[in-house]
Amino acid sequence: MTELKIDITLASSRKQKPDFDHLEFGKNFTDHMFIVDYTEGQGWHDARIVPYQPLTLDPASMVFHYGQTVFEGLKAYLTKDNEVLLFRPDMNMKRLNRSNDRLCIPKVDEELALSALKQLINVDREWVPTSEGTSLYIRPFIIATEPYLGVSPSKRYKFIIILSPVGAYYKEGINPVKIAVEREYVRATIGGTGNAKTAGNYAGSLKAQEVAEKDGYSQVLWLDGRENKYIEEVGSMNIFFKINGEVVTPILNGSILEGVTRDSILQLLKYWNIPVSERRLSMEDLYQAYKDGQLEEAFGTGTAAVISPVGELAWQGEKMVINNGQTGELAKKLYDTLTGIQLGTEPDPFGWTVKVAKQESANLL
Amino acid sequence: MTELKIDITLASSRKQKPDFDHLEFGKNFTDHMFIVDYTEGQGWHDARIVPYQPLTLDPASMVFHYGQTVFEGLKAYLTKDNEVLLFRPDMNMKRLNRSNDRLCIPKVDEELALSALKQLINVDREWVPTSEGTSLYIRPFIIATEPYLGVSPSKRYKFIIILSPVGAYYKEGINPVKIAVEREYVRATIGGTGNAKTAGNYAGSLKAQEVAEKDGYSQVLWLDGRENKYIEEVGSMNIFFKINGEVVTPILNGSILEGVTRDSILQLLKYWNIPVSERRLSMEDLYQAYKDGQLEEAFGTGTAAVISPVGELAWQGEKMVINNGQTGELAKKLYDTLTGIQLGTEPDPFGWTVKVAKQESANLL
Repeated sequence: MTELKIDITLASSRKQKPDFDHLEFGKNFTDHMFIVDYTEGQGWHDARIVPYQPLTLDPASMVFHYGQTVFEGLKAYLTKDNEVLLFRPDMNMKRLNRSNDRLCIPKVDEELALSALKQLINVDREWVPTSEGTSLYIRPFIIATEPYLGVSPSKRYKFIIILSPVGAYYKEGINPVKIAVEREYVRATIGGTGNAKTAGNYAGSLKAQEVAEKDGYSQVLWLDGRENKYIEEVGSMNIFFKINGEVVTPILNGSILEGVTRDSILQLLKYWNIPVSERRLSMEDLYQAYKDGQLEEAFGTGTAAVISPVGELAWQGEKMVINNGQTGELAKKLYDTLTGIQLGTEPDPFGWTVKVAKQESANLL
Repeated sequence: MTELKIDITLASSRKQKPDFDHLEFGKNFTDHMFIVDYTEGQGWHDARIVPYQPLTLDPASMVFHYGQTVFEGLKAYLTKDNEVLLFRPDMNMKRLNRSNDRLCIPKVDEELALSALKQLINVDREWVPTSEGTSLYIRPFIIATEPYLGVSPSKRYKFIIILSPVGAYYKEGINPVKIAVEREYVRATIGGTGNAKTAGNYAGSLKAQEVAEKDGYSQVLWLDGRENKYIEEVGSMNIFFKINGEVVTPILNGSILEGVTRDSILQLLKYWNIPVSERRLSMEDLYQAYKDGQLEEAFGTGTAAVISPVGELAWQGEKMVINNGQTGELAKKLYDTLTGIQLGTEPDPFGWTVKVAKQESANLL
């Protein structure tokens, strides 16, 4: 691994920090950001940490027109010993490169990207919030910046990391949410971009979410794009069901995002010897399990919310109330264990957490 | 219709114009651009024409992360009488609003948008190129600018129009191109965003195009996302086939873009009493027609290229050579007629062209 020389320009004054007890998701940003540029023929160059500032981009920049962009989302947590922990950041960097491949964006060096991320966190270390349930949300993203209106991969990119101290993603907290099964709109299909973390997947999902909210639901449950039959994701999360003692999640089929939380839950369940299965699951089979009294729990999983229990599923005029609309025992146990590992209060048998040492870079000394 | 008061700030100096005889597509931009902002609760406000300049956007702007953006593409032509003609611009504005609806972006007033477009063209009138085959490409687009990392519709937007003098879209000109039928990747599916003109559709298409180019093809022919069986589009164009005297194009099914050129061709063919059919067409049926010697022509249609003949289709190891790899008679006639109407050298029985009067706005006097 080559060393990454990052130029650091510190902000001349620091922003007032928001109230860490009342943080909203993704609305406050720290004092600094990381940027590195890509130019065809030259590769990634000019890595720098600079004061958080607007981007100056030609209006013909390809990201605005053809959406060539990918992103990641992960979190840093402050332990009671004042250590900053990252949760499986290598998984995010690997997925970033898988997304890059699908979107024809040049790959990044995963170790260098992680090193840059750690250095940025160190510069803004006092922004890692301290209140319960809070964390520092980390958003790496890459955008195509060549000013060109032809449809082809860009010859220039910016890889940027911004940081945002956050509270819970859902205002409801870990309370169960009501979900509508989506019948009209489709999030992704096999051969599309569903398993890449790219902007277009999210843009396309807004309409269904808007309709669901008008009908009193928090999110939609997405079915597959081919047959509108098999369960894929919930909102922008992976989905799990506990059916007759077995935990089931849709198998990664190419149109489902490979969630880091999803993977962690699968590993935890196996570790606990709880029966678990990744398989194709139709909405009809799920409904049958519900009618048979075997649908014990349902919950979404993702970095932002960690675990989001589903209390009610609306499908074809039927309201399926799950676990009396309460948070299930397993969802609660998974939430407590995962957030405990992330915060360093629970044992970490898998070595998932990565410490951000106070001197990550000689640059900072 | 309310009058649109556009604030105009002229550039203090004008750029050197590119050589109009050797224009590349979408690489040069004129001296000015149009911008209007949207703020929730306030609507669209602060319409202005300003010198072409970079956009200054918060790195958390939602367009970078969740791709909430739509665009249009249309062209202005200079007639031999020094008139500037637009081609069916009302169709583009209507489609822009249909795209807005799908992407949860607030609608624009179509007449006001068209008026803004005309005023902008007038300011940069000398940029409408004069050489044969050239035109002024017009790119209206809307981007979500709220700095927020939650997945929901933005509360702020910018609607921008930029202009680019262009030559032919394909370096090959109207010469036939070789196309590979895509088997792995999917452009869009029913319930997705395929019939909206939005960035994600284009981002997702790059990979297939890249693979096809490596194999020596210019573009791919997209099949449907449900069964990978029915023909949808070619590259970023609609597709037409002439089969045994009848012209066939895939019916608008919700995942195919409603092309303005597509619609114009359908109208022209009916006007000429040429049998035409919008219907579902499977790749197998097309291959059968080819084997039976009935596949007479194939061509893509779109604003950028107008007509792009297909000389060869590669499918399942088979190379289908169409019309001996030559431009078909019908494709040529459609190209000549359409570009003739656009340039004002052919009669315009449908009233498709719209003149940009030299005094579009009192603002300019």
